Amino acid sequence: MKATIKDVAKLAGVSFKTVSRVINNEGTVGQELQERVWKAVKQLNYRPNLSARGLRGAASSIGFIYDNPNSNYVIDMQRGILDECRAQGYELVIHPCDATNRTIIQEVLEMIDRSRVGGLVLTPPISENPDILAAIAERNVKFVRVLSGAKAPDDLSPCVYIDDRNAAYAITEHLIGLGHKDIAFLGGDEEHQSSGERLAGYKAALEDHKIKYSAKRVIPGSYSFESGVERTRQLLNTKGSNPTAIFACNDEIAAGTLFAARIAGVDVPAELSIAGFEDSPFSRQAWPNLTTAAQPTSTIAQRAASLLIKSLRNGKKVESEGFYPELIIRESSTKARH
Amino acid sequence: MKATIKDVAKLAGVSFKTVSRVINNEGTVGQELQERVWKAVKQLNYRPNLSARGLRGAASSIGFIYDNPNSNYVIDMQRGILDECRAQGYELVIHPCDATNRTIIQEVLEMIDRSRVGGLVLTPPISENPDILAAIAERNVKFVRVLSGAKAPDDLSPCVYIDDRNAAYAITEHLIGLGHKDIAFLGGDEEHQSSGERLAGYKAALEDHKIKYSAKRVIPGSYSFESGVERTRQLLNTKGSNPTAIFACNDEIAAGTLFAARIAGVDVPAELSIAGFEDSPFSRQAWPNLTTAAQPTSTIAQRAASLLIKSLRNGKKVESEGFYPELIIRESSTKARH
Repeated sequence: MKATIKDVAKLAGVSFKTVSRVINNEGTVGQELQERVWKAVKQLNYRPNLSARGLRGAASSIGFIYDNPNSNYVIDMQRGILDECRAQGYELVIHPCDATNRTIIQEVLEMIDRSRVGGLVLTPPISENPDILAAIAERNVKFVRVLSGAKAPDDLSPCVYIDDRNAAYAITEHLIGLGHKDIAFLGGDEEHQSSGERLAGYKAALEDHKIKYSAKRVIPGSYSFESGVERTRQLLNTKGSNPTAIFACNDEIAAGTLFAARIAGVDVPAELSIAGFEDSPFSRQAWPNLTTAAQPTSTIAQRAASLLIKSLRNGKKVESEGFYPELIIRESSTKARH
Repeated sequence: MKATIKDVAKLAGVSFKTVSRVINNEGTVGQELQERVWKAVKQLNYRPNLSARGLRGAASSIGFIYDNPNSNYVIDMQRGILDECRAQGYELVIHPCDATNRTIIQEVLEMIDRSRVGGLVLTPPISENPDILAAIAERNVKFVRVLSGAKAPDDLSPCVYIDDRNAAYAITEHLIGLGHKDIAFLGGDEEHQSSGERLAGYKAALEDHKIKYSAKRVIPGSYSFESGVERTRQLLNTKGSNPTAIFACNDEIAAGTLFAARIAGVDVPAELSIAGFEDSPFSRQAWPNLTTAAQPTSTIAQRAASLLIKSLRNGKKVESEGFYPELIIRESSTKARH
């Protein structure tokens, strides 16, 4: 016969309210009593029926749809969303996709049907695609967008906006402050607004410091290590005209820049300063450590999930929130040689 | 009024079978015809009802439960499972947890109830915990285990086993072949069988090559960068008795070893050879590149998901599968100085 909470209480010699407090980790029960309860739980092989808490019927999971090749970003996003799910009693369905796929809208709708999620957290470029957003809204599924910008673009749904432009301005200004006048910019994928925002910050800082902008020094590409290697190789191959600093649009690109500089025998930072964007584990673990902008991805994700769950629960309008990445100065950037 | 597949066919001037082929990506329709169909789909704002394909009722998602702090491992596992989910029409629920938590069994059962998954993919140490497995089996939920070993340990459920011992043997033998006689071993978390298996491989290689095993050279710890830094710092602080090679139980630890060696001014690989285990992105991107064992995590995960979906679909016994990590020799290991 299956053990009940009363059996556990009897064996442990405590009230069943105490057993419940211990099992639910309420932290109001002394250590010795906790031990007694857990011993009884184990001895009786007791399994509380947590699913009877009343979630049946209502959606008890949310979804995270993304198109991003950057593992660190994805794992940090997941971590933040999962933290909030755990705190609020939700499960998480993850769905990576190719936002350029022509069946993307059907795919998102099918994901909603299969997984029965109550709502979605969306990141760029999905969160910046009006067709996908319209299709989800039409299905009456709530969503929260993470996006690049200095404010919420509209009232369609709550969002968490990240001020990439000002952070990129701060990085560029830091390099200028070190005496760099020839700073190359390695962009990210164009369908991500962050790439354009960061470029805008770079340009604004050059302008404010009266440094001539050169279109040749802005090299488009994608947010990947390989793209960083490739573009840095090109830059360093042009004899006698190396930039003294490279601002890579994220840390993955910067890792590629560091790698290509090593291969080319260019000393970082003595001959070439490098800055990334993201504060990834690589930026902290590489030698030299990378100057970067700390984008608190997990916290951003946790806030997005929190806004989503709030709007699922009370149905009222939920306010958007903003984040401002912070300049982190490390060893990869130093004074320009003259 | 909502557009139907017939409306699309009419506007595109093709049969509705052709529209269906294009939308389902069957690849048997010429480029020009495809363009016409997509144009009509867009113009009519047509949305095929993929969810009507008959999945209603049956579980259309699986779960992945894990307790692992290694982001690369987690993301690679997810990638492999997601590839199989996409191919088979399933969604994925992810659930990280702390396997040492005393409410872990209730947590897993609650996750099953909330998410309504049809089955689970489990990785170490969850997949190696008999109490958790028994509780899941009791709920009549199918599961596939990924675990460390040279064969399937039992008939409880299909598993994907990874022969860590032989791979660790190959790494150690490679270092011995380079003339190293003093090789330190930095272990992983003890609750992971992989840590014990890799240590056993290290010991066996030393023994077969008549190199005396020294318990002092085996330093326990966890599968993390910080643990690698800390233990390497200890090793290199003991004056005059540095090992000439370090075998780190995974690439995260090896990254820490490389970092600590740099701080201590020890030249890698001239004065210290380093080998890791995993073939992580860091192992390929670091300078010098890390010698390691390639554990095809994504493929392992994809196979585990495939076995799970197979057993969900036909209910028959599904055979286990084995993987054998491969030695990858890179720049971080070289001949011992004498």
